[in-house]
Amino acid sequence: MTSRDYYADSYAHFGIHEEMLKDSVRTGSYRAAIVNNGHLFKGRTVLDVGCGTGILSMFAAKAGASHVVGIDMSNIIDQAQKIIEANGFKDTITLVKGKLEESQLPIQQFDIIISEWMGYFLLYESMLDTVLLARDKFLKPGGLIFPDNATLYMAAIEDQDYKEEKINFWDNVYGFDYSCIKDIALREPLVDTVELKSVVTDPCSIKHINLLTAKKEDLTFTAPFSLTATRNDYIHAFLAWFDISFDCTHKKIQFSTGPHAQYTHWKQTVFYTPSTLTVSEGQKITGQLTCSPNVKNNRDLDIIISYAAEGDETSAANVEYKMY
Amino acid sequence: MTSRDYYADSYAHFGIHEEMLKDSVRTGSYRAAIVNNGHLFKGRTVLDVGCGTGILSMFAAKAGASHVVGIDMSNIIDQAQKIIEANGFKDTITLVKGKLEESQLPIQQFDIIISEWMGYFLLYESMLDTVLLARDKFLKPGGLIFPDNATLYMAAIEDQDYKEEKINFWDNVYGFDYSCIKDIALREPLVDTVELKSVVTDPCSIKHINLLTAKKEDLTFTAPFSLTATRNDYIHAFLAWFDISFDCTHKKIQFSTGPHAQYTHWKQTVFYTPSTLTVSEGQKITGQLTCSPNVKNNRDLDIIISYAAEGDETSAANVEYKMY
Repeated sequence: MTSRDYYADSYAHFGIHEEMLKDSVRTGSYRAAIVNNGHLFKGRTVLDVGCGTGILSMFAAKAGASHVVGIDMSNIIDQAQKIIEANGFKDTITLVKGKLEESQLPIQQFDIIISEWMGYFLLYESMLDTVLLARDKFLKPGGLIFPDNATLYMAAIEDQDYKEEKINFWDNVYGFDYSCIKDIALREPLVDTVELKSVVTDPCSIKHINLLTAKKEDLTFTAPFSLTATRNDYIHAFLAWFDISFDCTHKKIQFSTGPHAQYTHWKQTVFYTPSTLTVSEGQKITGQLTCSPNVKNNRDLDIIISYAAEGDETSAANVEYKMY
Repeated sequence: MTSRDYYADSYAHFGIHEEMLKDSVRTGSYRAAIVNNGHLFKGRTVLDVGCGTGILSMFAAKAGASHVVGIDMSNIIDQAQKIIEANGFKDTITLVKGKLEESQLPIQQFDIIISEWMGYFLLYESMLDTVLLARDKFLKPGGLIFPDNATLYMAAIEDQDYKEEKINFWDNVYGFDYSCIKDIALREPLVDTVELKSVVTDPCSIKHINLLTAKKEDLTFTAPFSLTATRNDYIHAFLAWFDISFDCTHKKIQFSTGPHAQYTHWKQTVFYTPSTLTVSEGQKITGQLTCSPNVKNNRDLDIIISYAAEGDETSAANVEYKMY
């Protein structure tokens, strides 16, 4: 068995940018927020944190920014330089290769920060801490951040068939017992699309982040939740997604990565429960979700979900998940 | 933009094994070749090169092998150890973690080598060189190798729509010129499934590997090809795939990863041409394909395809591809 995972990794040289650019909810929302708000960008200085291929920097230049600085530590910035030159933005956009923490920027104070920093489950592998650092170091008082608000949601879902395929599969692999891998599989949240009809509870907001005021410490948090079943059904997993908004725009631009919304490359995040919960319409599932960067590797996320169905003590559980 | 590629890479902890195990053409063929050939395995010693989760080792034990040694350098072998114990093979299967070149094995000479070493395009990231080394060092004279034959094929395809989406996309990204990435995208072979109806030429075998006799040097090669168009159409890409056979089995087991065969996780490999070729039924496209490990990183493959359509000098081209 060869390690084909290497392929996905290195294809990402440009493949991941292809996926992000083709995510029209993502890129279209940023375009609307920036290009349709020339009154905010005209004559202003803009910092693009994690600029990638430079698409947001070019939107800002097109919206009338006096100067845009894009920074990225990935080699993709070499292509970004060719792209901004090919599109006539050589004088308006300056690209810097490196980590924000260690780089000298040609401008010290910016009117606006733009960034697409969101990861799976909003915070996995996200650049939010770098955006907050950029804000504290480089944003003028009263400056704007695009986007300026993010909210994480959760709900519970019926997912018998797919849980069978992804988790219970390991009970019997060509007649062999692979259950040691089942335990690992269960604890790794699954990034995938979920149909709205699978959702069996109301959604619950568990974390709001205002980019203008959030602190790095806010990214480690414990949030209570209470989900109310909307029908008699079974629960096989919790589901999480996030919404993003650009509240500072003329006509508020927002998008959701939830199961009710159009597909995005962030999909949703599924946390399978060890046991199935049986719930009745109106019954509450209450608990709390704790999220923190892993102590050994702060790019990994430790997520603990404690929960119980109201009136059913046997349903109580405390499950430790790890996104890595 | 965050580097979400990390996710795919680390999900591979077990995700890649899930994909391989669920590839029923792959795993089912190995099972048939091993379990249905007890007369070859009964009382024999077996070496499983790159044993992963241990599935092939367990097939061999089930087929009556006196002892199986599985070797793998990946951490997945820690799970494999739990799996073989859970399935009662602790005394029959010995697992060794490490590189074959550097490891001490509990048995010095084996009757049979089993291995699933194939990568995309057969040779990308493949473990074939390790299997050949294992053969020279550990296989008894007259011993068997499962599988013992592999053949690489190519053809040409009509692929207007998908080429538009994957390659020409870069000509215009939200109104911007991203053509520098188009050049990179064209030179990276695309691993994807192709429908049989897209194939517009006869297939042509370009490389046969007999595992019993092949040498490491044979994996660097130049092969001529001649493809005959089966209809009037356009050609946007060359296509490659491979067939695998277990010739030593009682009833010869074989499978194909071609566009005419059932889906496998190897899919097919697409090499887009810079220009579109216009071909008529019966017309030949001739040329040669050169394949070699990259000098700087021998896990990467350099592939050069030179070609011309018969009677159309303007169609001649020489394109350098890189799988990395």
